[in-house]
Amino acid sequence: MKNEKDIFDDIEIDVSAIDAEKHAVSPAVIKRLPRYFRYLRELIRMGKTRVSSAELSKMMNVTASQIRQDLNCFGGFGQQGYGYNVNYLYTKICEILGVGCGFRAAVIGAGNLGSALVKSPMFEKRGVDVVAMFDVDESLVGKRLGHIRIFNVSDIERIFEDYAIDIAILTMPKEFAQETAERLTRTNIGGIWNFTGKELKLESDIVIENVHIGDSLMTLCYEIARKKDNGDSSAK
Amino acid sequence: MKNEKDIFDDIEIDVSAIDAEKHAVSPAVIKRLPRYFRYLRELIRMGKTRVSSAELSKMMNVTASQIRQDLNCFGGFGQQGYGYNVNYLYTKICEILGVGCGFRAAVIGAGNLGSALVKSPMFEKRGVDVVAMFDVDESLVGKRLGHIRIFNVSDIERIFEDYAIDIAILTMPKEFAQETAERLTRTNIGGIWNFTGKELKLESDIVIENVHIGDSLMTLCYEIARKKDNGDSSAK
Repeated sequence: MKNEKDIFDDIEIDVSAIDAEKHAVSPAVIKRLPRYFRYLRELIRMGKTRVSSAELSKMMNVTASQIRQDLNCFGGFGQQGYGYNVNYLYTKICEILGVGCGFRAAVIGAGNLGSALVKSPMFEKRGVDVVAMFDVDESLVGKRLGHIRIFNVSDIERIFEDYAIDIAILTMPKEFAQETAERLTRTNIGGIWNFTGKELKLESDIVIENVHIGDSLMTLCYEIARKKDNGDSSAK
Repeated sequence: MKNEKDIFDDIEIDVSAIDAEKHAVSPAVIKRLPRYFRYLRELIRMGKTRVSSAELSKMMNVTASQIRQDLNCFGGFGQQGYGYNVNYLYTKICEILGVGCGFRAAVIGAGNLGSALVKSPMFEKRGVDVVAMFDVDESLVGKRLGHIRIFNVSDIERIFEDYAIDIAILTMPKEFAQETAERLTRTNIGGIWNFTGKELKLESDIVIENVHIGDSLMTLCYEIARKKDNGDSSAK
């Protein structure tokens, strides 16, 4: 039996096709693509080769017409009575999202969060290769987490160049985030994935993507409080 | 000098005021409130007692008129020449978001991610108390992470009742997420914070908030690829 990696290795991602597509897809659709990516992966894993917009609609809890609209944007035309070709859609979405770009990443901050991140299968699934970690803690420097070596933060510039790193993942304490980001502007990275909660101000065209997990916790608390509230008042 | 906890302890959150406000604020504003919450905390930490919409606008990279509109929604009326009262706004936002509700949470899955989460200051900042962890690994059961005890997952129902837990945080492997969630429908929780990547299907009114960190990574990759692409074509 094939394992998961083999299944996805069979799917060729033609990076050369990115150019033409990229300019046609609206930002709103782009924002929804990672979700399609996840569901299509799931379908591939299940061995499904085709899917109807009605099935996708049910899985994803989005209207079938929204799905048809979204997928039509990048030439994912379903056929009456056949539906969509799962591999084709998956490949197209990978292309548009840059999954085939082979980006290399480094995690700065080898604490709990940094360690949890590098051990997650998330990177491999998305074609990102984590190649180095950094920390200030001398007792960690030189060690490895899996196959990933931990370097001293003082070596950031050198190692980023040696490893041709595209993405810096910031998981160090908030108070060091801004100065680290400023150092990173002197490297060749394309983007920062920022978990520190610090709003970074950079004079550079480096892309910054902030993750505020706490915002999601607050949304949850709000919804629970609201439900309790409605429950209480309807019970009166 | 006061430490951070003391500063925020001085701010009283009047939970009784939640009812009236909650129904007036639109979902779009609610979605933006966690961000205001973060910035207002930062201002309080810096000792600022008032802030203008122009200052907030600059900090948050949102138009001043958007800010005025948002804050007016819940009676946060700025005064000409004075601006907004930071503590008042912070308290109001905490009320609306349920920060003063004193929700109790348990983490199911004491691996890297679960451990990273419980060690983060995120919960305390948002008034959520993590009181228990669970794992299947017998070598972890009975141990403590900080002051939080790790229980056997077989005890979920009993411990959730004993500790009156409101929120279950799922950080176990994906394949056990659905069955665990189904067990949770037999407890009194109000919400599930789901990090497993598994789309949960429950016949219950439990609120589910999914965290897909990988989606954010894909957005970042897309933006980097797009910029590279534009850079390449403009260089031609």
